[in-house]
Amino acid sequence: MELHERIFELALNRSFFIPSNEIYGSASGFYDYGPAGCQIKHNLENAWRRMFLVEDGFLEVESSIVTPEIVLKASGHVDEFTDPVVSCKKCNSKVRADHLVEDKVKIKWDGKLETLNALISDNGITCPSCGGELSEAYVTNLMFSTGIGADHARAYLRPETAQGIFTAFPRIFRNHGTKLPLAVGQIGRSFRNEISPRKGIVRMREFTQMELEYFFSPIKAEIEGFEAVAQKKMRFLKRGAAEPEWMTAQQVVEEGIGNQIMAYFLAKEWEYYVLAGLDQERMWFRHLEENETPHYSESNVDLEVLTSYGVVEISGNAYRTNYDLSRHGQFSGKEIEVFLQEEGKKVVPHVVEVSMGVDRLIFCLLEHTFREKSGEKEWEWFDFPPAVAPYEVAVFPLMKKDELKAPAESIVLTLRENGINTYYSAIGSIGKRYARLDEIGVPYAVTIDYQTIEDNTVTIRFRNDGKQKRVKIPELAEKLKKYKKEGRFTL
Amino acid sequence: MELHERIFELALNRSFFIPSNEIYGSASGFYDYGPAGCQIKHNLENAWRRMFLVEDGFLEVESSIVTPEIVLKASGHVDEFTDPVVSCKKCNSKVRADHLVEDKVKIKWDGKLETLNALISDNGITCPSCGGELSEAYVTNLMFSTGIGADHARAYLRPETAQGIFTAFPRIFRNHGTKLPLAVGQIGRSFRNEISPRKGIVRMREFTQMELEYFFSPIKAEIEGFEAVAQKKMRFLKRGAAEPEWMTAQQVVEEGIGNQIMAYFLAKEWEYYVLAGLDQERMWFRHLEENETPHYSESNVDLEVLTSYGVVEISGNAYRTNYDLSRHGQFSGKEIEVFLQEEGKKVVPHVVEVSMGVDRLIFCLLEHTFREKSGEKEWEWFDFPPAVAPYEVAVFPLMKKDELKAPAESIVLTLRENGINTYYSAIGSIGKRYARLDEIGVPYAVTIDYQTIEDNTVTIRFRNDGKQKRVKIPELAEKLKKYKKEGRFTL
Repeated sequence: MELHERIFELALNRSFFIPSNEIYGSASGFYDYGPAGCQIKHNLENAWRRMFLVEDGFLEVESSIVTPEIVLKASGHVDEFTDPVVSCKKCNSKVRADHLVEDKVKIKWDGKLETLNALISDNGITCPSCGGELSEAYVTNLMFSTGIGADHARAYLRPETAQGIFTAFPRIFRNHGTKLPLAVGQIGRSFRNEISPRKGIVRMREFTQMELEYFFSPIKAEIEGFEAVAQKKMRFLKRGAAEPEWMTAQQVVEEGIGNQIMAYFLAKEWEYYVLAGLDQERMWFRHLEENETPHYSESNVDLEVLTSYGVVEISGNAYRTNYDLSRHGQFSGKEIEVFLQEEGKKVVPHVVEVSMGVDRLIFCLLEHTFREKSGEKEWEWFDFPPAVAPYEVAVFPLMKKDELKAPAESIVLTLRENGINTYYSAIGSIGKRYARLDEIGVPYAVTIDYQTIEDNTVTIRFRNDGKQKRVKIPELAEKLKKYKKEGRFTL
Repeated sequence: MELHERIFELALNRSFFIPSNEIYGSASGFYDYGPAGCQIKHNLENAWRRMFLVEDGFLEVESSIVTPEIVLKASGHVDEFTDPVVSCKKCNSKVRADHLVEDKVKIKWDGKLETLNALISDNGITCPSCGGELSEAYVTNLMFSTGIGADHARAYLRPETAQGIFTAFPRIFRNHGTKLPLAVGQIGRSFRNEISPRKGIVRMREFTQMELEYFFSPIKAEIEGFEAVAQKKMRFLKRGAAEPEWMTAQQVVEEGIGNQIMAYFLAKEWEYYVLAGLDQERMWFRHLEENETPHYSESNVDLEVLTSYGVVEISGNAYRTNYDLSRHGQFSGKEIEVFLQEEGKKVVPHVVEVSMGVDRLIFCLLEHTFREKSGEKEWEWFDFPPAVAPYEVAVFPLMKKDELKAPAESIVLTLRENGINTYYSAIGSIGKRYARLDEIGVPYAVTIDYQTIEDNTVTIRFRNDGKQKRVKIPELAEKLKKYKKEGRFTL
């Protein structure tokens, strides 16, 4: 069984994620987060918020999902956000033409429909479902379309959260000091109507993005705080290189891969993903080749992660120049230039964009943190850092009896008041409760037993070796905070 | 100017909320949350999560927005989630027929299309835009429709988050102990394609719900913890009553308005809304009349709030029996009964639903907490509780000089480590910075001045009287926590 099959099975049974509307034999590409996955997702989102917005005093918005057509005309999505498809003349099923051809003849597609058609006929490629003859390749738009109001004015579900930031920019600039730089982030759902989504939550039709747009004057491609990250290291796959190498943020700038702003965010991202629990040896930034970079972009850098599906891209970073704002200026007919007092002139702000996917990150984390131990005693767990785990600690009275429940509940309250994300359960055998914790990667369990009543002590159980230590209740919260800080998950 | 017009203007200029894609002269019924509104929204959502889920050990999920047609056939939305419309034969504009008739002849509609048609022709009602003749009334579905995949399989944007909880129930029940009661909540966007939305964020086409489904065995309509809320009081408008009266949760049960479970959640809701800052004198629960209650429901109770728009409904509570699960069982053909070991039999769980809207709550809060003071010195502010305000405290160095910035930044770090939601700004005159804080309702400002360097003290400024107090830096965090706890917003 491939690791991703194993992970998918665990996800289903441990409530990380489950196919949406499962009882109806759900539509592919849609997943729900169950209780454990939902906690992990919130933890990752909140950590992003703290690290990418709060720490730097950047702003956050929440914009609408349903988006009028003209906005996405301006952004280019209506005309260019497409995938090539072929349909089977016999069974009528539709497949991604580029994926089909790449699978069969192992050639990377050059982006032209003619090439696909030639490759299909030259190689006698037929329908993967029934072997029937295929149609010519054609393009289909990847957005979900809908209609607003009684007249069904054409609209789409946003394909990215970024456009809502761009169209709100003039108002936010006006309300928040009329100065550059100005940075605005957003966490929210986006939608892509994939033709034939596979790979579970790696390719979802509805997914969550964490995006940040850093608006700046083109003559000041600088960011406060760069010095603090300049020497931070990350793995980088440079253009044409065979292997990633370690580089500092400073080197990213010096080698012309990206400006200071982009290098700053890459360094932050690396730190974010490492803290989240990804394996540094299985990830790297890749500087996209010239022919992969949009014409308006000065530089594109993706974060790629190695999984059992192969390489998965979990973030995209781009110096998009003033392309997006200019287009919205043209299509809306509104003044999009801003007057910069310091420079004494008007400019259309440039933008560096950070675009990170939550769902793919969760999948990569599940793969990178999965552990199993066989031998005398078999068990398996997820090695999540406490800040990512569904809960930091679980509190268990040994038995469901009032004399144990009362102190247990009071401990729960104290831990929560200390800002510790605490789970509580009094049901089931203690061994099963421990096992269930390991299964969802909770690092610590606190057990209240009969000795607790005698001497006011409880045990702390460590996830990664299952061993226990007895501590005094008044010291419990501090001890847990200390272990968490030290990253200590074994006795 | 009506209060809601004033609030709308303030919201626009202070970044609470702004029309989506404003530069395109946006589609009505869509709003974005700007930086201040976004913070308030998160605070309200997190408070809900703590109070309605974490405290009781209930579960949270995040399900998909795009929903296949069959799911909403089962829920009844495809056939019954409609509004009556008339179109103008001259200008072709479409309006809500019931609203139009209710406006013109002040009669509450009985739900029948014939009645609307009769009232329109008997009273000579014409198009409100151009005076043209109106069509017969017809119904239109309120869901946004879309299509999944290359074949555009019919789907809708969910009209409520609840259905995702119902369809996930069998899996969650299996994964989480196979026992009742089981409670599952969800916070997320829902969509209603209103014909002619007005009233700003009170009637949005895309909005956020906080919903909770409490599944229980029909012979055990009980909830742990009821005793603790039994004597809590709330204002209640009983069936047929002219005025709301104060009632305890216990009385709600005794008078047969709702069972213990519903009374428990009503008591929690009352507390939640009061803590959020709504004015108790301008809100009440209303027990819906029999003809307003769906056939399958045992009881429906709404929370109604008085605003300058009139009465606004911000929460709906219903004992929906086993209607939803039974329907999903029928339509999916899957076994929906669960075996309860304690009862030794299979049952379709019953459910009490709590459904609360975030956006309407924000609007009501803005109206209820807006304050202005004229006289010698004029100012205005929002009297938000610290837990709801965009930030709990702002930290300002008096001037943008390094010797003041360094201690200011270190204070910011300390406050954040203490879990205090802190804003920082070093730009602009101090008076303007204070005014901007009041405008978005931040309760405390901490100012670092030259005396800080001499004696390690700072000033705390109180939002509601603008007066200041000098405190020692090491005592700052505790002082702020104390003021916050005491609800002290003046010197």
